[in-house]
Formats: sequence, C-alpha cells, structure tokens
Amino acid sequence: MKRIVIVGGVAGGASAAARARRMSEDAEIIMLDRGAYISFANCGLPYHIGGDIQSRDALLLQTPESFKRRFNVEVRLHSDVIAIDREQKQITVQDAQQNTSYLVDYDTLILSPGAAPFIPDVEGISDGRIQTMRNIPDMDRIMRILEQQRPTHATVVGGGFIGLEAAEALRQRGLEATLVELSGQVMAPVDIEMATPLHSELEAHGVDLRLHAGLTKVTATDTGLTLSLSDGSDLETGIVILAIGVRPETALAKAAGLALGERGGIQVDEQMRTSDPDILAVGDAVEITEWVSGKPALIPLAGPANRQGRIAADNALGAKRAFTKTQGTAVCRVFDLTVAATGMNEKSLRRAGIDYRKVYVHPMDHASYFPGAEQISLKLLFTPDEGKILGAQALGKKGVDKRIDVLAVAQRAGMTVFDLEELELCYAPPYGSAKDPVNLAGFVAANWLRGDTDLCFAEELAAITAEQKLLDVRTPAELERVGAFDGAINIPVDELRDRLTELDPTVEYLVACQVGLRGHVAYRMLVNRGFKAKNLTGGFKTWQMFKGCRQATPLVVEGE
Amino acid sequence: MKRIVIVGGVAGGASAAARARRMSEDAEIIMLDRGAYISFANCGLPYHIGGDIQSRDALLLQTPESFKRRFNVEVRLHSDVIAIDREQKQITVQDAQQNTSYLVDYDTLILSPGAAPFIPDVEGISDGRIQTMRNIPDMDRIMRILEQQRPTHATVVGGGFIGLEAAEALRQRGLEATLVELSGQVMAPVDIEMATPLHSELEAHGVDLRLHAGLTKVTATDTGLTLSLSDGSDLETGIVILAIGVRPETALAKAAGLALGERGGIQVDEQMRTSDPDILAVGDAVEITEWVSGKPALIPLAGPANRQGRIAADNALGAKRAFTKTQGTAVCRVFDLTVAATGMNEKSLRRAGIDYRKVYVHPMDHASYFPGAEQISLKLLFTPDEGKILGAQALGKKGVDKRIDVLAVAQRAGMTVFDLEELELCYAPPYGSAKDPVNLAGFVAANWLRGDTDLCFAEELAAITAEQKLLDVRTPAELERVGAFDGAINIPVDELRDRLTELDPTVEYLVACQVGLRGHVAYRMLVNRGFKAKNLTGGFKTWQMFKGCRQATPLVVEGE
Repeated sequence: MKRIVIVGGVAGGASAAARARRMSEDAEIIMLDRGAYISFANCGLPYHIGGDIQSRDALLLQTPESFKRRFNVEVRLHSDVIAIDREQKQITVQDAQQNTSYLVDYDTLILSPGAAPFIPDVEGISDGRIQTMRNIPDMDRIMRILEQQRPTHATVVGGGFIGLEAAEALRQRGLEATLVELSGQVMAPVDIEMATPLHSELEAHGVDLRLHAGLTKVTATDTGLTLSLSDGSDLETGIVILAIGVRPETALAKAAGLALGERGGIQVDEQMRTSDPDILAVGDAVEITEWVSGKPALIPLAGPANRQGRIAADNALGAKRAFTKTQGTAVCRVFDLTVAATGMNEKSLRRAGIDYRKVYVHPMDHASYFPGAEQISLKLLFTPDEGKILGAQALGKKGVDKRIDVLAVAQRAGMTVFDLEELELCYAPPYGSAKDPVNLAGFVAANWLRGDTDLCFAEELAAITAEQKLLDVRTPAELERVGAFDGAINIPVDELRDRLTELDPTVEYLVACQVGLRGHVAYRMLVNRGFKAKNLTGGFKTWQMFKGCRQATPLVVEGE
Repeated sequence: MKRIVIVGGVAGGASAAARARRMSEDAEIIMLDRGAYISFANCGLPYHIGGDIQSRDALLLQTPESFKRRFNVEVRLHSDVIAIDREQKQITVQDAQQNTSYLVDYDTLILSPGAAPFIPDVEGISDGRIQTMRNIPDMDRIMRILEQQRPTHATVVGGGFIGLEAAEALRQRGLEATLVELSGQVMAPVDIEMATPLHSELEAHGVDLRLHAGLTKVTATDTGLTLSLSDGSDLETGIVILAIGVRPETALAKAAGLALGERGGIQVDEQMRTSDPDILAVGDAVEITEWVSGKPALIPLAGPANRQGRIAADNALGAKRAFTKTQGTAVCRVFDLTVAATGMNEKSLRRAGIDYRKVYVHPMDHASYFPGAEQISLKLLFTPDEGKILGAQALGKKGVDKRIDVLAVAQRAGMTVFDLEELELCYAPPYGSAKDPVNLAGFVAANWLRGDTDLCFAEELAAITAEQKLLDVRTPAELERVGAFDGAINIPVDELRDRLTELDPTVEYLVACQVGLRGHVAYRMLVNRGFKAKNLTGGFKTWQMFKGCRQATPLVVEGE
C-alpha cells in the first residue's frame, strides 16, 4: 500500500489529497499542516474584514473531519514538518500541541508549503498592531484589533492585490486608511499608465495614497503607532497591515538538499517533481515557467496551485502529466474599478529584452446605446512581426475580467492580432458590441501590422520635434469639456477633408482624438492625400493616463 | 476614379462604406437603401419598446449627413435597387419619394440587402395590428399601436432571440403576453434541456408560453384579434409581433443571375465575392461556412456582418482578405437569465452525423463564499477521440457570456478539453473561482476521455435496465429539500466507503448527486473497489432540466 504524505494544505495540498484519493482507494494519504486549518479561502480574508463576506465560517472550506469522511485522508494539524530524510524516505514531524516529535515514512512526498509574507527588517516592526494577512489566525488578529482597540486610522504597506483589497476593506469598515507603496504605482502586474486610474480611484474613495514611500521605522506612542516613511514623512496610525509580497517557504526543501531555482523557489520539472524524484512540490513555493519568456517565475496564485496539486497527485500515483507554463492571469477589484492582466507587461518585456508593439483602445463594455455602458481601457502587447499576443491589461467598471479571459485564452492558443479581428464573441446590447473591445484592439493592431495605420504614443508627445505637429481632431466643445493638449492644432475630423489646405505637407502630423477612432479616420484621410501622419493610440484618454504617472511635465508642442 | 456602390446600409453596408473610405480617399462611394435610415441599432429595437432604452434617437447611429461629413459617402435613402445589369455594370434605382428610376454605374457592387422577416401565409395576417420588428419603421408602428390603441394583451409568434426579447419588452410595459412557438422549445441555438429553464423563466415572469403551437388564422373582432393556433386553441389579443425568423433578401441577386447557395442565401467565396467577381455580398443575405461541419449556413448576426463589410471593402479596393468560417456565437437576455451558445449543438451535430460526447456542469459564477454567487449551467460538446470542442451552451443569471466567449475562442483555436483544464482565467472571489466553470467542464470531459470517469445521462435514466441501479449519494436532507429520483437507493457519499457491503457487485450503479461532483467522488470509490459504475453528468440538476422537456414521464427505476 503506497503512502503519500502531503506537507501543507490549502489550494495545492488539499487539491492533491482529494485527487489522490479519487484516483486510488488503496493509497494511504496523510496531510500535515503546521496551522490550525486545513483548507480555507485565503482569497476571501480581506472581504471578511471589509464585511462583504459576513460569516467567518464561510471561509472555512474543509475540516479534518470532513476531509476524513469524504476522502479518507488523515489530516494532522499543528504538525510542523521540520526535516526530510531522503535516504530513509522519512520526515520528522513536530506536534505543536503535544510538544513532541515523531517520524513518518513516505513513498511519495508532496510539498505544498506555500509562501510567507515578507516582513521588512525595520525598527519596531514586531509591535502586535502590525499584522500580515495570509491566513485565518492573521485575519482573526486583525479583526480583534479592529474590534477591541477601535483604531480610527489604518495603514496598509504594499500596493499589490492583498494591499489593495486590504485598503478597500478598511475603508468599508469606516477607518481612515493610508496605503504606502515603495514603487511609483500600485498593482505591479499592469504598467504604470494602467495603474494611474487605480490611484485616482483609491483617492476618490478616501485612501491616502503614498507612492515612492517605504516603511523605515515604527514607534509605539500613547495613542497608537508612528510610522516613519522613506519620503521623510511621519504617519500616525492605529494598525498596520503588511502586504509587501510573499517569499516561497523553502527552508524545509533547502535543508533537505532539494534544488532551488534562480528565483529562490523550489525547482520542479513539468511533472512537479523536485530534484528528488520521490518528492513533488506544488503551489506558491515552486518556480514555474512564464508563458512568453520561458523564464522561471514565482506566481503565487490559487488557480495554478490547484492544477499543480491535481497533477502532482496523478504523478505520485504513476501518471506522467505535465503542468504547462503560466500566464499569471490575475484580476483585482479596487472599489468600483476592476483591473486585470494576463501574460507579460511592458516592464517585464523590456527587462526580458523582448521586442513588442502595443495599442490602446477605450471602448464601452457593451453597446453604448444600452443603459449602463461603462468604458474599458484595454492595452494589448504583441510581437512586431507576426502579431502574436504577448500580454494584455484592462481596467474599467464592468466586463474587464471577460476581456482578459478572452485574451488569456487567445494568448495560450498562440493567436495573433489578426485572429482577434475575427473572434466571434457574444453580442446583444446588454452584453457587448458587434465589434467587441477585443475585436477592436485586434483591428487597431492588425491595421498597424498590415501598414494601414502608423501609431504614435502618449510618451512621445513630450518629445515632439520641430518636424512634427500635434493635430487634435475632436470638436471644440469636447476640448472645452474634456480638456485639450497644450499647443495642438484643432481641426475636427468632420471638417478636415475641406481644410487640408491649412496643413503643412512638410511636417508629420501626430493625430489625436479622444480614444483613437476618429484619429484613425483622420490619419487615413491625411496619408491618402499624401501627408505624413501618425495616430495617437488610445487618444487623449491614454495621454491622460500617462500624464497621471508623470511629474506633470507640460507638453511642449510646436504651436501654429 | 473607382466607384463602389453599396446596396443596403446597417451593419454590413455601413461598415463596408466607412472602411472603403478609410482605405481610399479617391474612391467614389455611393450607398443606397430602400428605407429611411442608413444605420440604426436594430439589436436595440426591443429594448426601446420595453423601456430599457428610453430615447428613440439613441438607436439612430448615423444620418446621411453625418456619414457624408465623416466619410464623404453619398447616401441615398428611399432608393430601391430593382435591377443589376452585370454586362453594363449598371444598376437601376427606384426613387420612392420622387417615384422615378435611374441608372447608376459601378466598378464594384457590394450587396448588403439583409434578410426579411418571414410572414406566414395564414388568413388575416395582413391586419395592421400584426407587425414584424426588424427596423425603425416597424418599431415606430408597434409603439404607435401600443400607445394609441392601448392593448392589454400582446402575442409574440416565434421563440428565437427577437421573440424572446419582444416578449420581455411587452411584459416590461405591463402588457399580458403570450409567446407562441411551433417547436418544443424557445431559443433554437441551444438544445431542449438547456431551454427548459428559459420556459420556466418566461412563465415566472407572467409570459403565457404555448409550445408546439403555430398560428393558423387571424380574425379581427370588435375588441382586437382572435388568433387560432394549431393546437386547436383560440387566443384573444390586441397586437401580434411576428418573430418567426428571417429569409435572406435574394430577389435582386437572383434576378441578376447570381448563384444562390443550398440554404437559399447568396453564394459567396471566402473573399465575399458572388459568382460575379465585380459583385460582393455581405450580411444576413449571404451563406457562410459553419465552423465545425464546414457546411453552408445562414447566420443573421451583427458581428459577422460587420466583419464581412470590412473585408468586402478591402477586397473591393484590391485586397484579398478572407472571411473565416462562423461559429454563430450568440447570447440573449431572458428576464433575469442569460443564455448563450457557440458552435454546434446536439441537434445540429446529430443532423450532420458528427460523433460527439457531452458533459454538464453547474458551478457558481464566482466563489460561492462571496455574496451574490449564481449558478451557471454549462453544456460542453466535444469529439470522442481528441476532445476537440464542437460547441458549448450556458445559462444562468451572471457570468454566462464570459464563459461562452472563453469557449468560443477555445473552439476557434482548435483547443481540446485537455486545454480547458489548463486555462488560466481571472480569479478573485468577486469574479470567478480558482477552478473556473470552464476549467471544471474541462476536468469532467478530460477525466472521461482519459478513462478516469465513465458518465451516464439524464435521458438514460428513463431506460434503466434490470442490471443497473440508481444510487443517489446526496444527503437525506437534500432529497427532502431539492427533490429525489423515484426509486433510487440513497447512500450519502460521506457514508459510502463504510457501506460498500450493502452494494451488489453484479449490477452497474448509476451514481447521481446534485451537480455531478460528489457523484464523481462516489464513482471513483466504487470503481476503485471493483464495482461497475457510471456517474450522472450534471446530476439531479441536469435531470430536472431534462424532465422539464418531457411529458413528465415517471422514472421507472429498479428499487432496492
């Protein structure tokens, strides 16, 4: 009888245990976890704090008893695995409640240790009012502080998923909240211009956002905590949630001599086997391969962890299933906005030295004549030659997750921007448009690769040359209402055909409208008449997003 | 200077005209339409009648003036093209306002005549209170009748998209409404068991649904109309909306000797060229190729029409772009439900003699512990060997369009059910689950093809043999609450492992739970212990949907 021992529960471990049992009634399956909970909804923690999920019990998905009944898996909680003897195929388990340790033999070991929140090494960090938010006890501690000490101000350190969700939760509870982020943007999976609307959204909902600021010191005071920030400022607060990121839990694997990867996670092959073929590893602790670059990556997400758990269980029982590379598809709610991304972003493409092109579109989530339509900002990255999809980012109030899901599948399938033009997606007025935002991004990108358009970018406008002029083809009423580019010529697209004589055939016109559609019409009119031109992709809307991430550099444009 | 003449506006024609102008400033572009509107949101008509879209003007997307200004396209309304002289490359235009006719030369002709509502040839059908709902004048007439004659009861004939939307619109206006449908189900793109929840939804919202009923006679009375139906019943009503379907408008093409296809539409090659290379055709009037079967199909949808218009314009100007085959992806709102489909359904696969397998899943649209989660019923059709996706159907209150979009892209990319297991889709509790409904459908289908599960179907339960027993693994409390199968043995899955001795090793167990998940656990337990078993795909929930489409045949199951 084969014995499978699983170290660590939650997504990866519990999926592996359940799958292993489904595949074999005979195997002995033991799952050990150092904590008090075997399977809980860690993605739900901030929503319980914020009140969306009212019942704490809703987060507790399985108990040792329910797991035993359903899957005949022996679950041992408070059981820390402190050593692996690979020769003897034996682990040492420390029972925290009995304060004893003992040995357990295994035939196959599946490691699912997860990742631990990163805690910065600054003075005063060990104060009890400074908490991470990774598991049920973390959440319980935060709830206790909020309920018993009733702080009026909370600080979140770190602007990733967890930090954003925590900031929203604290505001929902009526606390004042400050979000401190070391970099220039929240939500690292998207590029900075796609993050600036999130910054506005946070501020509109009363979050005091401090970018380019890190925590350097914590001082306990009579009334709470004083946080010293790297930007020189001080901050009075009552509770701190640390959400700076996580580090793979590799201590056990490392001590056992298992190979670690270049990113510091446990190295596994595509069958999820570590350097010891009798030991598999899954979840946040392992390095997996990034879809586009083929490079190792740490992707601490529940979806991949679940699938890895299933695959590891099959392989532990003799199968040879492979986990594919990962795209890191992710979504986050930030108050009334949704932001989502898949594949690589511009930052990571540049770092990896991968050549790319990009387009922006800002269509409505469904037919604009049907009530409730909301604008989606979509950024698409693709290869300059074939137009293969490299990554996508989107944000808006509705329909954002749908478009990124569609693009994640398209990317996975190896589709190109030409394929996006042709996608047949659900259309009825409440759901979409006959030309879906994804089709539209495909149109713009494909037009570019076919040579039917030439694009310029918001970041180029600051470096406009003497041989270029910015031509705004919106109506004067729009400029009044929405805002204008400094120093641009304004000829509305519907007048342009009759006013071509006003233009200078020796310069290149950078054509701009609100979102890029009329700009394209004007661009085509100009080049068909022999003018040099480029269309500003995403128009004024994209430019505003870029401007939001600049030090408000005034545009210097050659005037008329 | 090349002259492109376009016959018919709306989706296909207007897209072609705009694209042609963008590609060429030089071309002369003339667009003719027999109606009074060049470009209107025909998909929005029912929503204006129902009140979702309050302003009629919102439906009028372009005027001849706006089209002239923006695209320098000469639009002639009330202009019926009554003949094509292919030799002379000349059309005859009848000007309905001037009551004159004249000739127009063309270099390339693009036909976008659309499709006409089918009007059954029954006595009394020409009464003014019987209307179709295809264009703005249709809608205006319906609105006038509703506002001036104030009927209290309305009848919709036909249960397709338009019929369903019309019935909802009329109920929204507070009218009593009857929906008459000749077949046994509404919404033909889905199979009958997927339509039964729509039947319940219609009835729950006060629609009097008459299936298996056709209109045979209309009699004007003092107070309104009496409709005679093929089921022998009579119906008093005040207004009738005919939505039986559409027929491609081919009279002009046919008279000009252009080839028609086997489905009766205008035959085009993949470049949208008719049998005359100087005449292209797009939109509802043309036959295109169905994705899976490769057979000609009539797909009167806005999305394909738009793309065909773009492609025809490019090809009219010398390009050689191809329109791909069509999947017919479609979505419809039916009160609080959304129903959507892509690819082929079971009915069309059977008709085409294509071998298939199917699975059903009923997961929540997002994490069940996050408030507002709603169940989605998803049916996936795939090839028995490779597991290639043949089609998908879904319904539910939320997240339905997203899943069908994902599956439409997957199908288009030639993905298999094994690929669906691996898809990385957006996950955060408000948006999805770590195992998305699409992943889940992939798991079930892939398990089947790998031999890790064997499935049975709701329709088989009625024909259960003496060598089979139905084993319900839900809890007694559930059976009480949700309903039970007649004559099934009940052993909850969590007790099954300890009660295997109660089972008969000589029979085959058809295992059932609520949606199929626990059934799978029980199935694995049984086969791992040497019993013969199959799992009911989609469980009791699917069975209820099937039952809804039967004549309430009582299940005869071998008892304990």
